Amino acid sequence: MASVKCILVTGGAGYIGSHTVIELLDAGYDVVVLDNLVNASMESIKRVEDISGKKIQTYNVDLLDAKALEDVFNKHKFDGVIHFAGLKAVGESCELPLLYYKTNVGGTMNLLEIMEKKNVKNVVFSSSATVYGTPSYLPLDEKHPVGGCTNPYGKTKYFIEEILRDVCKANKEWNVVLLRYFNPVGSHISGKIGEDPQGLPNNLMPFVAQVAVGKRKELKVFGSDYDTPDGTGVRDYIHVVDLAKGHVASLKKIEEKCGCKTYNLGTGRGCSVLDMVKAFETASGKKIPYSLEPRRAGDVASCYGSTDLAEKELGWKAQKDLNTMCTDLWRWQSSNPNGYRV
Amino acid sequence: MASVKCILVTGGAGYIGSHTVIELLDAGYDVVVLDNLVNASMESIKRVEDISGKKIQTYNVDLLDAKALEDVFNKHKFDGVIHFAGLKAVGESCELPLLYYKTNVGGTMNLLEIMEKKNVKNVVFSSSATVYGTPSYLPLDEKHPVGGCTNPYGKTKYFIEEILRDVCKANKEWNVVLLRYFNPVGSHISGKIGEDPQGLPNNLMPFVAQVAVGKRKELKVFGSDYDTPDGTGVRDYIHVVDLAKGHVASLKKIEEKCGCKTYNLGTGRGCSVLDMVKAFETASGKKIPYSLEPRRAGDVASCYGSTDLAEKELGWKAQKDLNTMCTDLWRWQSSNPNGYRV
Repeated sequence: MASVKCILVTGGAGYIGSHTVIELLDAGYDVVVLDNLVNASMESIKRVEDISGKKIQTYNVDLLDAKALEDVFNKHKFDGVIHFAGLKAVGESCELPLLYYKTNVGGTMNLLEIMEKKNVKNVVFSSSATVYGTPSYLPLDEKHPVGGCTNPYGKTKYFIEEILRDVCKANKEWNVVLLRYFNPVGSHISGKIGEDPQGLPNNLMPFVAQVAVGKRKELKVFGSDYDTPDGTGVRDYIHVVDLAKGHVASLKKIEEKCGCKTYNLGTGRGCSVLDMVKAFETASGKKIPYSLEPRRAGDVASCYGSTDLAEKELGWKAQKDLNTMCTDLWRWQSSNPNGYRV
Repeated sequence: MASVKCILVTGGAGYIGSHTVIELLDAGYDVVVLDNLVNASMESIKRVEDISGKKIQTYNVDLLDAKALEDVFNKHKFDGVIHFAGLKAVGESCELPLLYYKTNVGGTMNLLEIMEKKNVKNVVFSSSATVYGTPSYLPLDEKHPVGGCTNPYGKTKYFIEEILRDVCKANKEWNVVLLRYFNPVGSHISGKIGEDPQGLPNNLMPFVAQVAVGKRKELKVFGSDYDTPDGTGVRDYIHVVDLAKGHVASLKKIEEKCGCKTYNLGTGRGCSVLDMVKAFETASGKKIPYSLEPRRAGDVASCYGSTDLAEKELGWKAQKDLNTMCTDLWRWQSSNPNGYRV
């Protein structure tokens, strides 16, 4: 492969997907988006077009529809795929495990099958630090044992990683980068695209932003007696634009015919819930009322990752600080209090 | 559920499947067989009909064909499913991982989805001791860590176990028995049905039997310097009819609404390769020439399981000894030198 040119982005209308499409366009790639719009809206694509000044060919296709997926591959000659598409709510995955396995693992298998058939053997996969389960040590590096997570969402990520590793072992023509995300937050600097959770947000920062904008009364902080500096849970928050740039760096790695590689995408720094609340209050000028609640089952005290390997092998490092994450998030939330819905 | 009556057996034309169908019919169950006949033949079903004196409704259906599968569920009211269908060659799974994940995991997801839809929530799953990976202690009991196996075949078994455990956690109406098989050998006493590998046998005893019948020149014994009594690998061989009876016992357990249970099905005794060769020579009166070869990558020295839990909770225990295993295998092989092929 001389150079990766046209990239299929599955789940490209979603939060991380839409930010990545912008970075890909900026870096000179052609982009085709495939999204079933179950958890995303065409409005995000329109705004990406607005930001980038480019039209984006978008297919409303579900990965489980093998026929429609093949049609997309028949219409384009892809050089690689960035695979975001999947369900992502931990709690829902415990209630509807079959839906999660079918959608995430089944959808990925369909995708890989058609990629194999069409000789498109370069893929960047949207994995998660959740594959590490409860950390045995911190910071988490890529050699930390995986597979110990207890919810179906996390297991789908782990299963897909294993499938991709085996595909690479079986056929040296495949190049795969598994990206283990820590906690993406923030928005594009334009404030035009951002995270748009449906219903109650599953993650901290969208919840905080909805409190700031008056959609939620107060934040519930789950656990204030952890063994952390202020007792609240510590996580590795990363600006979504930094994360998106990590995908572009991964495509460059794939152009070197890298085989199967795995990288953490985080900042390497842990922040507590209260650190984040304070930073958001400063950025937004809004007071965030919160209550301290008991710990939530399945949560760990601290989770943050080493990003040395990504820096060394991808030449990538997160650049944006906490204040930027919060300022950008607030710009998105305050100008789009109802997300993409009018 | 007052009593389990009509059982769907996926992969019912295969080696363990066909033996289990006989035991189910003997125990008074109605049986419907579903098999894609990729690795099995209708001849085995004809012979099961011959042995049992009963007609068996059989569908040539692939689990990946969701529509055809649903048609089968529309034609019958199943009380439970015994799920054998799947690919099973370790070496092939390393070469064709996607095929294995799609067939085994994808097929099972289709099956579970239609079961959920049709309110058939009782299933016995054909797992394997391979989910234990390299033993940390012996005998392997059901509390031994799982997930450490390195080939895609074994991982499909592990993934399916995890999916079934999560399905049971999410919905208490499901009853699942995960059966971890050790090494099934032997045949029905009639000699009419048995293991019929296509091409080079993957397992020891079919190979030995083919040497005895003159189809192969000599047996290659992989590894003679293991830390075992005679230096060759030690496994837990179980008569396939004992194994089949374990499935009937599992259905009884399911009738108690057991939730998710896991049982080893083995004998609890380890036998070396040379023990097996000697036993087969005695049973068949044939000399088995063999050569000692280097160890094969991925093989462990010893693997045998504790069967205490199955005995306690299922009231099941393997009854047939090594001589019976070999005698029955030889009856099958000598009267069917080419298996089911004429």
